[in-house]
Amino acid sequence: MRTSTDCIPCFVRQALDAVRLVTDDEAVHIQLLRDVLRDVSEMDMRLPPPAVGQQIHRLIRDLTGNNDPYRELKDRFNQLALNMYPKLSALVENSGNPMETAVRLGIAGNVIDFGVNSHVGEARVHEAVERALVQPLDGDVEAFSQAVANGKEVLYLADNAGEIVFDRLLIERIPPEKLTVVVKGSPVINDATMVDAEIAGITELFEVIDNGSDAPATILADCSRAFRERFHKADLVIAKGQGNYETLSDADKSIFFMLMVKCPVIAGDLGCKVGSLILRRSAHAGFVLEKVK
Amino acid sequence: MRTSTDCIPCFVRQALDAVRLVTDDEAVHIQLLRDVLRDVSEMDMRLPPPAVGQQIHRLIRDLTGNNDPYRELKDRFNQLALNMYPKLSALVENSGNPMETAVRLGIAGNVIDFGVNSHVGEARVHEAVERALVQPLDGDVEAFSQAVANGKEVLYLADNAGEIVFDRLLIERIPPEKLTVVVKGSPVINDATMVDAEIAGITELFEVIDNGSDAPATILADCSRAFRERFHKADLVIAKGQGNYETLSDADKSIFFMLMVKCPVIAGDLGCKVGSLILRRSAHAGFVLEKVK
Repeated sequence: MRTSTDCIPCFVRQALDAVRLVTDDEAVHIQLLRDVLRDVSEMDMRLPPPAVGQQIHRLIRDLTGNNDPYRELKDRFNQLALNMYPKLSALVENSGNPMETAVRLGIAGNVIDFGVNSHVGEARVHEAVERALVQPLDGDVEAFSQAVANGKEVLYLADNAGEIVFDRLLIERIPPEKLTVVVKGSPVINDATMVDAEIAGITELFEVIDNGSDAPATILADCSRAFRERFHKADLVIAKGQGNYETLSDADKSIFFMLMVKCPVIAGDLGCKVGSLILRRSAHAGFVLEKVK
Repeated sequence: MRTSTDCIPCFVRQALDAVRLVTDDEAVHIQLLRDVLRDVSEMDMRLPPPAVGQQIHRLIRDLTGNNDPYRELKDRFNQLALNMYPKLSALVENSGNPMETAVRLGIAGNVIDFGVNSHVGEARVHEAVERALVQPLDGDVEAFSQAVANGKEVLYLADNAGEIVFDRLLIERIPPEKLTVVVKGSPVINDATMVDAEIAGITELFEVIDNGSDAPATILADCSRAFRERFHKADLVIAKGQGNYETLSDADKSIFFMLMVKCPVIAGDLGCKVGSLILRRSAHAGFVLEKVK
């Protein structure tokens, strides 16, 4: 997905929100804004929006000398989600359609996204769970279950810390021998890295690899060769969150995108409303699934 | 008033809204955004926000080759306000406190501000009038009336087209021999210029001068020498709108600011809520009014 002109004011607002979360020093806020404005003024609009997010958060880490400014927030939301996990897990087990309930809760966890909104709080997470259990799901859970059943090598691209505990509800329904979970190569915003997969208890259950990148999404050209090989070999990819949709929506690959829609540009691209719960197969999925069969 | 970091994302959003109002050509939208981002990245944060607005709208006029892109909008809102004028004028005359009603309606007209919000429609203007008649007025109309009565040379700094017809309800209550109405020197956003004062019927009733500037506010250093002389000679200035508050709030002058608060930065500066109706005397007014007495 290319960057829209609508993304430009949003980049600047996100940069300001992010740097305020990391430091109270107004001189740093101003310097960051100047750097971001200059970089964005020269950006290639053909790139997907997370390429700018990657740049913004590199600048914030450079300016503050803090390599992982969201660590405390990530711990807090991991813990919140772990506290919710036993009840949510029972909800999945006792539901009429456990896969659908797990998908819905996985998408609810996608609300914990400090890239889009730096004001997510505990109440917002509980509200997202309540809402995700009852609102329409834009997607075909049956087709998703079938694709997972048919898949031989499945990659699950996790999105954020906290959210990754919600992901566990879903990935526990996939045989571990065919599933690999992917986290980011190094800290960016509140995206999950290896330590978050460990905290979520996922490393004990599945193979977990990192993608070698500090982009808040999956920019293939920026990922490690090792990850790219796994990506190309996989016959099914499950990609969580807006960022992965933005960077992989045009990829020639069988992908299921799972996300909560949080911005009007993505809503426009998907032809849905902000707030929608999406489980959408990539345009190329039909072809590749045919091959797999 | 200095520029706040909160203004920076807003400048970029306003630039995008403005250029979309003027042309559908996406290449122009992108070029404008690049130019604005570069300019803002180098801006002097000690300047008031309208200095950036001035720059943005110069760029839009340059890029589109259109010297007055808001002309049609200005005509539309002048006509809307002229259609409302007879009824509003009767409302003022028949009210228990005509000066207060005229002040409230003058502030209601300040909703027609395409700098802050490019989506103002007719319904919004009618709604603003209804609201302005009943909501609390943050200001002392009695002190204002007294200052006007005591004033010998009063300058009225008009803000926008359409709004200037609402201003007429108020300035008609000031003896014409001591009042001069000021409009912008050349087109910028939907700010009123001489032609709007003519359309509003104000040039027949009062002396009207222009300030020689294309800033969407009163940046004294950017105004003509002739205007600056009148400004310094005046013993009372009535300044309409947010822009004039931003550029004149620190001026060493007796000023009454009249505005509808439309942004959180100004609300913070004034210690009020967004949506407030403000009639506020400048910090220097007490001293100067003393002298006048």
